[in-house]
Amino acid sequence: MTLFITFEGPEGSGKTTQIRLLADALRSQGYDVLTTREPGGTVIGDAIRSVLLSIEHHTMSPRAETLLFNAARAQIVDEVIRPALDAGRIVLCDRYADSTLAYQGYGREQDLDELRALGRYATAALTPDVTIYLDIDPHAGLARKRAGDAAEWNRMEEETLAYHQAVRAGYHALAAQEPERWLLLDATARPGVLHETLLSRLEPHLIAMKERNPA
Amino acid sequence: MTLFITFEGPEGSGKTTQIRLLADALRSQGYDVLTTREPGGTVIGDAIRSVLLSIEHHTMSPRAETLLFNAARAQIVDEVIRPALDAGRIVLCDRYADSTLAYQGYGREQDLDELRALGRYATAALTPDVTIYLDIDPHAGLARKRAGDAAEWNRMEEETLAYHQAVRAGYHALAAQEPERWLLLDATARPGVLHETLLSRLEPHLIAMKERNPA
Repeated sequence: MTLFITFEGPEGSGKTTQIRLLADALRSQGYDVLTTREPGGTVIGDAIRSVLLSIEHHTMSPRAETLLFNAARAQIVDEVIRPALDAGRIVLCDRYADSTLAYQGYGREQDLDELRALGRYATAALTPDVTIYLDIDPHAGLARKRAGDAAEWNRMEEETLAYHQAVRAGYHALAAQEPERWLLLDATARPGVLHETLLSRLEPHLIAMKERNPA
Repeated sequence: MTLFITFEGPEGSGKTTQIRLLADALRSQGYDVLTTREPGGTVIGDAIRSVLLSIEHHTMSPRAETLLFNAARAQIVDEVIRPALDAGRIVLCDRYADSTLAYQGYGREQDLDELRALGRYATAALTPDVTIYLDIDPHAGLARKRAGDAAEWNRMEEETLAYHQAVRAGYHALAAQEPERWLLLDATARPGVLHETLLSRLEPHLIAMKERNPA
């Protein structure tokens, strides 16, 4: 009884809230759920996160940034995600390899094939069973984020709106390439409504999981 | 008039001293020389270095370690090495992409082709003109290092002797694959003697550089 679910979406799309609501719902159904997040989620990952998000690191090379995200990813896979899946838990992860394809690939125009190879190396080829994409117009998402918690304002969010729009288009392209893995949801819905939609869209995957692993 | 020279070798092989002596010698010949080191050499690289070398990070995934070294490498290439070479300087760098092949590839038995692909990505395919390898038996090298500066004792040096021997054998294999790039020197020689040998071995490369770029 194991399922690896990742959450993707622009800043301010409400991933944190939806992960909490989904974890609560799954736990109330008796599932053993672990929630984690990239690029933190481990002591080493948090150290890498602080390097990545420091407002002082404006001069960061795009390739260095990509490699740091992948370093945190390798750590969380080996230390947290893989052991949890091996122990039969459901893992909900806030961001994963698709973020690099969207932000560094589509957003910064790095070569997608090179980024895919990096991602395979970092994750030891561990792919999510389901990826939930919370879709929102970047302009609306950033405004929500800024209003919600000014302290979370960081280097990543200082990018231009055009960049965030390229990232969103990238997510749409990624979802179109693997429609069976991606669930696209409208993040402008109220959180409770969005949660119910998410649960119903996820239901077939939970049924398939139970069929794969009859108790 | 530009040359990219890297220094490789086990802990305690005397790279720091030889880089200083070579930089002084080249400057006295009128060359514009920049010295730097991996995984530091930049503000961002120093932050990554502190993540890598922290004694508390025993649980670091081998792939995370490799990706962190490559992140620091991408940063130093873009911020320091490439601009210095473009400005016509001689760059001396303490460790570079070959360290990853030796330590993570031969030492930790990660796939060499995957590591080479990572290195090409991180360096944007910038290869040294000359790589100076200071060869010393790991047992002797580690003893020297420990005696010299106990404060520099760190996580990397807590590895087993067998690991360091595999790293040394790896360096020998790398040098054998590209004999025109690598200069192998016996690091047990006295520093002044070693420096003179290094200078004479480097001379043909300096002459070739001048022939490529007549003033």
